Amino acid sequence: MIIGFDADDTLWHNEDGFQATTRIFEDLLDAWADPDEVGDRLFAIEKRNMNRYGYGVKAFTLSMIEAAIDISDGNIDTAQLQTILELGHHLLDRPAELIDDVVEVLEAVGREHTLMIITKGDLYHQLARIDSSGLKDHFWRTEVVAHKDPTTYRELLGLHGVLPREFVMIGNSLPSDVLPVIEIGGRGIHIPYHVTWEMEHADPSVADSHDAPMLDSLADLPAFLADWA
Amino acid sequence: MIIGFDADDTLWHNEDGFQATTRIFEDLLDAWADPDEVGDRLFAIEKRNMNRYGYGVKAFTLSMIEAAIDISDGNIDTAQLQTILELGHHLLDRPAELIDDVVEVLEAVGREHTLMIITKGDLYHQLARIDSSGLKDHFWRTEVVAHKDPTTYRELLGLHGVLPREFVMIGNSLPSDVLPVIEIGGRGIHIPYHVTWEMEHADPSVADSHDAPMLDSLADLPAFLADWA
Repeated sequence: MIIGFDADDTLWHNEDGFQATTRIFEDLLDAWADPDEVGDRLFAIEKRNMNRYGYGVKAFTLSMIEAAIDISDGNIDTAQLQTILELGHHLLDRPAELIDDVVEVLEAVGREHTLMIITKGDLYHQLARIDSSGLKDHFWRTEVVAHKDPTTYRELLGLHGVLPREFVMIGNSLPSDVLPVIEIGGRGIHIPYHVTWEMEHADPSVADSHDAPMLDSLADLPAFLADWA
Repeated sequence: MIIGFDADDTLWHNEDGFQATTRIFEDLLDAWADPDEVGDRLFAIEKRNMNRYGYGVKAFTLSMIEAAIDISDGNIDTAQLQTILELGHHLLDRPAELIDDVVEVLEAVGREHTLMIITKGDLYHQLARIDSSGLKDHFWRTEVVAHKDPTTYRELLGLHGVLPREFVMIGNSLPSDVLPVIEIGGRGIHIPYHVTWEMEHADPSVADSHDAPMLDSLADLPAFLADWA
């Protein structure tokens, strides 16, 4: 089989860094609004910008700057805006901190199957992360995509000559990693991360409509795959 | 043959928008430094951020914000920073304005050859531009890459099953579109745009070391290809 792995929050930690940054952002704005309101207004701006910016740290940093000006009614000072730029740099520079047992799991699964990375987000930053992770040699192919929808998966598998029925996608997001792959005739395994970005929450009715397996941790994957037809 | 086309400043206008935005940015900062100094300091910050941000409008907008705070010694006001965010939105929302004769050229060249887009930059924005250009159906494949270097071209052509000796790349940048393709055994045709981003200026000694043809305009391409062995 060909096994596709999502990267952020599947192979390495990511969302925890965004959430920690959001807490610092809430503190920076605490003269103007309480933390919940700051978080909500930031998220509303992120969502509104999604169509224009797409995903990733640069998009998030621009939304933080816009939200800071908006929430403070233009009263935030430039030293604080400079701090926000540095929060973005810090997220971009963060080395790939691997999820527990990643190397052992990739070694075990890679002995039986052919592995790919299929990750969404900022092309430049994702490639830098893959390089810094030290995991690249485990993978036959790595692909960064703008959207994880059925059309993208279909085109991508076609390009690499992979049949959907021999493809399994592993990831922490039901709407990005599992459901669109099932839709094109492949399979998905859901391995939740301890925190999920609000934008990746699946609609509950959709989330219940599939029977894809869910594992507690990546470490369970080799044994699970060995048993799975 | 397989013909690869660069997109920004080859199929549609791009750098002129960045340069017009830079002029507006220089005006915004004119209380603190003269236009040449503003332009130079912005470019120095863009260059320093290149490794972290990569290419594209979001990277450029973040560098403008950083430069505005730096050049004004923190005295720029948030209304002006808001204006800078809007300059970025304006660049992102700009529809693809096609270079003269693009449609006719793609139709003519596409009758004899198989066409690809190979463009560098922000994945999400480039795909949106390709969609909005209305040109997509002329192309067999479209690829957005983070770097235009020999390794990337080699891998990309390999993935699509294209031999370098049957590949010709067309673009406005010698260091991105022509020289790396020659290095891997393909051919390149240089069609300069009326302005060139400072980062894409080729080292003069390197620029002189090749004998790739240069055309005055895209409209000359069909006749040139018909004559070229």
